[in-house]
Amino acid sequence: MRYRRAAAKLWRARAVNFTSDNGAGVAPEILEAILATSRGSEPAYGADAETASAEAAVDAIFGRKCATFLVATGTAANALALASLARPFEAIFCHEEAHIQDDECGAPEMFSAGAKIVGIAGVGGKISPRGWRETLERFPRGRVHGVQPAALSLSQVTEAGTLYGLDEIAALSAIARQAGLGVHLDGARFANALAALGCSPADMTWRAGVDVLSLGATKNGALACEAVVFFDPEKAASFPFQRKRSGHLLSKGRFLGAQMHAYLRDGLWLRLAAKANAAAARLAAGLGAVAGARLAWPAQANEVFAILPRRALAPLRAAGAQFYEWNSRAFAAGEAPKADEICVRLVCSFATESAEVEAFLAALREHCD
Amino acid sequence: MRYRRAAAKLWRARAVNFTSDNGAGVAPEILEAILATSRGSEPAYGADAETASAEAAVDAIFGRKCATFLVATGTAANALALASLARPFEAIFCHEEAHIQDDECGAPEMFSAGAKIVGIAGVGGKISPRGWRETLERFPRGRVHGVQPAALSLSQVTEAGTLYGLDEIAALSAIARQAGLGVHLDGARFANALAALGCSPADMTWRAGVDVLSLGATKNGALACEAVVFFDPEKAASFPFQRKRSGHLLSKGRFLGAQMHAYLRDGLWLRLAAKANAAAARLAAGLGAVAGARLAWPAQANEVFAILPRRALAPLRAAGAQFYEWNSRAFAAGEAPKADEICVRLVCSFATESAEVEAFLAALREHCD
Amino acid sequence: MRYRRAAAKLWRARAVNFTSDNGAGVAPEILEAILATSRGSEPAYGADAETASAEAAVDAIFGRKCATFLVATGTAANALALASLARPFEAIFCHEEAHIQDDECGAPEMFSAGAKIVGIAGVGGKISPRGWRETLERFPRGRVHGVQPAALSLSQVTEAGTLYGLDEIAALSAIARQAGLGVHLDGARFANALAALGCSPADMTWRAGVDVLSLGATKNGALACEAVVFFDPEKAASFPFQRKRSGHLLSKGRFLGAQMHAYLRDGLWLRLAAKANAAAARLAAGLGAVAGARLAWPAQANEVFAILPRRALAPLRAAGAQFYEWNSRAFAAGEAPKADEICVRLVCSFATESAEVEAFLAALREHCD
Amino acid sequence: MRYRRAAAKLWRARAVNFTSDNGAGVAPEILEAILATSRGSEPAYGADAETASAEAAVDAIFGRKCATFLVATGTAANALALASLARPFEAIFCHEEAHIQDDECGAPEMFSAGAKIVGIAGVGGKISPRGWRETLERFPRGRVHGVQPAALSLSQVTEAGTLYGLDEIAALSAIARQAGLGVHLDGARFANALAALGCSPADMTWRAGVDVLSLGATKNGALACEAVVFFDPEKAASFPFQRKRSGHLLSKGRFLGAQMHAYLRDGLWLRLAAKANAAAARLAAGLGAVAGARLAWPAQANEVFAILPRRALAPLRAAGAQFYEWNSRAFAAGEAPKADEICVRLVCSFATESAEVEAFLAALREHCD
Repeated sequence: MRYRRAAAKLWRARAVNFTSDNGAGVAPEILEAILATSRGSEPAYGADAETASAEAAVDAIFGRKCATFLVATGTAANALALASLARPFEAIFCHEEAHIQDDECGAPEMFSAGAKIVGIAGVGGKISPRGWRETLERFPRGRVHGVQPAALSLSQVTEAGTLYGLDEIAALSAIARQAGLGVHLDGARFANALAALGCSPADMTWRAGVDVLSLGATKNGALACEAVVFFDPEKAASFPFQRKRSGHLLSKGRFLGAQMHAYLRDGLWLRLAAKANAAAARLAAGLGAVAGARLAWPAQANEVFAILPRRALAPLRAAGAQFYEWNSRAFAAGEAPKADEICVRLVCSFATESAEVEAFLAALREHCD
Repeated sequence: MRYRRAAAKLWRARAVNFTSDNGAGVAPEILEAILATSRGSEPAYGADAETASAEAAVDAIFGRKCATFLVATGTAANALALASLARPFEAIFCHEEAHIQDDECGAPEMFSAGAKIVGIAGVGGKISPRGWRETLERFPRGRVHGVQPAALSLSQVTEAGTLYGLDEIAALSAIARQAGLGVHLDGARFANALAALGCSPADMTWRAGVDVLSLGATKNGALACEAVVFFDPEKAASFPFQRKRSGHLLSKGRFLGAQMHAYLRDGLWLRLAAKANAAAARLAAGLGAVAGARLAWPAQANEVFAILPRRALAPLRAAGAQFYEWNSRAFAAGEAPKADEICVRLVCSFATESAEVEAFLAALREHCD
Repeated sequence: MRYRRAAAKLWRARAVNFTSDNGAGVAPEILEAILATSRGSEPAYGADAETASAEAAVDAIFGRKCATFLVATGTAANALALASLARPFEAIFCHEEAHIQDDECGAPEMFSAGAKIVGIAGVGGKISPRGWRETLERFPRGRVHGVQPAALSLSQVTEAGTLYGLDEIAALSAIARQAGLGVHLDGARFANALAALGCSPADMTWRAGVDVLSLGATKNGALACEAVVFFDPEKAASFPFQRKRSGHLLSKGRFLGAQMHAYLRDGLWLRLAAKANAAAARLAAGLGAVAGARLAWPAQANEVFAILPRRALAPLRAAGAQFYEWNSRAFAAGEAPKADEICVRLVCSFATESAEVEAFLAALREHCD
Repeated sequence: MRYRRAAAKLWRARAVNFTSDNGAGVAPEILEAILATSRGSEPAYGADAETASAEAAVDAIFGRKCATFLVATGTAANALALASLARPFEAIFCHEEAHIQDDECGAPEMFSAGAKIVGIAGVGGKISPRGWRETLERFPRGRVHGVQPAALSLSQVTEAGTLYGLDEIAALSAIARQAGLGVHLDGARFANALAALGCSPADMTWRAGVDVLSLGATKNGALACEAVVFFDPEKAASFPFQRKRSGHLLSKGRFLGAQMHAYLRDGLWLRLAAKANAAAARLAAGLGAVAGARLAWPAQANEVFAILPRRALAPLRAAGAQFYEWNSRAFAAGEAPKADEICVRLVCSFATESAEVEAFLAALREHCD
């Protein structure tokens, strides 16, 4: 009953919003850090104290000296990272539904001056070692007619909200490294993966074979801040110029530094991520108990992919729920939506309220059963 | 005496900073707007209310329906605007020391996929109609061996801190338009120009023949916000995709919207610019009265280019003054620095204190005379 | 017996060469045309009489005024044609094993400054209307995160040596055009397709919805000559500049003109193609009669894709036969090579001798049965 | 008298053609080599015997093991060579009127994915060490806002038909190398320079500090053939892929091999060049004796740049002479054409007849005096 009332209120505010974690605002701690650095004169272009602190925080978290570069968007972080790994006549491999393939309007191609992004099919948004090997074999090294293999890009959390185990990352990276490729990790939701797996940042990255990480903060409480982290600083030699010429060197860089510093300080990033993950877990659990609804694959971090009856969509939306339909080819055999079903994506953020989850589930129960 | 004491204090704080207007922080009104929009859920990618308000504010200020796109850096604004005007086999013309030529690490080339940036010499950072015509003649239309003329890019305020009169913009634009070229205005310091000339935004842009404007806010009090403004919205058809694929579509777009909206609201932008201009005027006036120092060319907005004795630099810096030496080829005949002189750039911002100006002048008097 | 002896002789000369039709030399008529234009002074860069004659020949063959551009390679023809149809933030669709996707080392990406080449699966190297529609649906127009659909590229002859019927080209083109896309035809083996189908050049191109054609001559008897043919000359406005800046405007253009003119004159191209097709038909027929060997799919032009026992390969090669193994995903269900089989490609050219075909078949019979 | 008659005959044939050396045909020895390789099957894509012979000939001529790549155009040779030296955020320096800057429609920008071509002024088409040093100083290494210096490109013969002395090449290269830059030599008319200077190919290239050479043959008697020669083969590792993806790997590569092999065999290239140079020398000498005409600068190879009275142009052309007017900024002080004068370029080739030279001079005497 309590939830019903809360839900009604939320419906009215049209705030049962599961469209994306980037619809949320800014975590108070990060806002305060922005305020704190907003007065007075500071060196521009990242030569400021806040940026230095953010860089030191990254080093501390990963347990080694990294080369860290802050930018304002995840697209920039990914495209710049990939361009550091692949030349124009080379290929970047990723899941066929990876963000870099489907959702960045060709940014990796632009930044790499035309490298080819090669998709690999895989259930639940994950590449399997076998699929990776078979794809790689189609790109023999030295064949002048074919683009040359240069980089593997994994997403953790994947585009389907699933997680690679540390051993899976290591196995996929090992295939890449053995073939002389670099490994990129798209960590737009890195903290959500960390919080879910409970492992160390080092274990999920360089110890598992990752060369370059896109470390996201925006989706998890920052205003606009992502980091590109090179675990071997020598590979970052030309990065400052690539960042500048792509327009991603902010003049008042202190505000990126302040965000990332606050984000990583005292475990804030993990607390925010844990909150989002917990909301998604409640949503998934509730959803699993609704007859007629089911999970497309397990919800392992802060995203739930659910297969719902098509007829439920209109009433859910009419009632105020916001979410995206999700076309995917990543279903396991026999698990794809049937003709009268549809897959939807439900994303929770650090700001998702329990009441939103409950309101959604209540409406779902009403319209699915 | 009073100033001497203030100066001493500033020296100690190392805050006599004339390196650039992007070393300043954020104007309180803009910070407040960021705070105000930081809670709650909003549509991402610029579909929010603050962005809509910012776009409406731009339309109002220019007196016509524009297509406005917010980005976080001036490099992005310029490179995206230019890429909308020039194809890869075409040429973009600008002053030979323009920011787009010398200070963006090849961004226009990247965004346009290889267009050629052709510099035109000119005293005080300004292109003359004659210089423009003579350069244009070297690029005959239809000659397949030569890049084809596509766009003229003017800077207002120029890279040398000078201003074009409205008639000058109109004359240069007319030559461009007659030859079928588009016209871009790099307005990184647009408000400073407006405040100095006291004209309307429309007079300085579309009424003078400008097609696309980079409208800066960052140097004049924003955190990180610039707009690309198309005066003919039809020419912006592919801009959303170009912005996205270059990584310049911010997910939490509301924070760009909030900045630009606050910036343009109630004349804030002009008040901030007027403050910066006034500081520069005091600096220029004071400098003109110091024997041994002189202006390289008139200081018309918020930047002062001064020719000082080389021997004065070390003591000025030792005392805490921060500024850049400025290599230029834009001196009028006979006005270039002599062997024992050097040109320096002194930039004032909305946050420049009178005491900073006075402190600098006091030190200058001591070490130049 | 006679063939056995011929085969023995060919084996010794290592001339049983089915690797590709570009291993052949130059047709005598084309060589003579090169010789005939090699003396005396002519205007450079395609302003010569032979180029004009070639252009007129193209117009005559297609029954309309075209804009024709000669280049020296098929990669250039394809990449330039595609770059005229797709902008950097757009997508070009083709069969997943098309030459432009797998065999041009990223040339379309380079020339288009980063357009995405999207592969579509299909049996026998052919796209089906259903596969094309389903793929296209994944690229909704106006979605800023996704590349925008711009062009369909079909190959005729396909990369698998098969042919589209005229109605199939028309159906696939119609889907493209309805969605606002341009249509490119990769006609590296255009004459082989024409000779096989016995239709008119117009029927196979612009009457079936094709906008731009890569018209190959090199594989069919020229030294190095391909044409890009625009059926709507207005769409070719910027082509001369794109050709020049990619280094594909030959200074002594008369030699391209002479080749193409001779190639199209008096039906030479069709005679050469018919000869190659006939050789392939004999090869396919003979192969079908060998137990243990089978066709991967029908051989419709001058290429035979055969599935052979793995154990036959070494003896065939030891005896002098030259050909490529062919990895493909284009097999019909149940038709892929088994573990002890392998697919090979056998290409015939205008210069393939009957004796070569017979020698190969004889050896095959010996080692397959 | 005799010449007058010859001239009359030539006028009628409109063969007094000094427009360019690429208006000539093909040297008989090179045609014969093409014929000789035109029959039979050969491995494609440069794996043939003729290409191997050409590569060996290049090694022999330069006295060291080189990595040599054949292409069909000078634009391709230059753009590919430069792209091997400069990354997208870097700068390539050349004379401000160099072919790569003014006559290749932005090809170096395309192939390098946006590197900046920076022009250096200099009398007679030549860069001076001082001009080179002053320009280089404007591009400080490590400054993130500015493109980074990467390569110096010299032309020998220069675009103005003049020559660098070996010591001059060495001095300019030394400045480049000291600053960590690579050195490219545009040798579209390399043989003409060699024949004029009488030095060894090694002395004019790698011994003088050149890293990569564009070695032209087309303008000096080939059909369409140029070589990119790396003196350190290790620097060519990615060149095969860059050549392929730009469409410059010819399938029937044997025809490039045959041309270059024949060109370099038995000194053919030097004989052809000497013939062209001698024609230019006669033209220059004759021209110097005509009152009212003068040389813009010395004619050192096969090109004559002459300043003529404007009134002479129409009658010269009416009589059949063909040549280009030449706008240049490379005149020495006081030497630029006056208002009633104009600079023209007169290019001689291996095929230029003495009668053409005499006919032109006779007409000049008639209309200038």
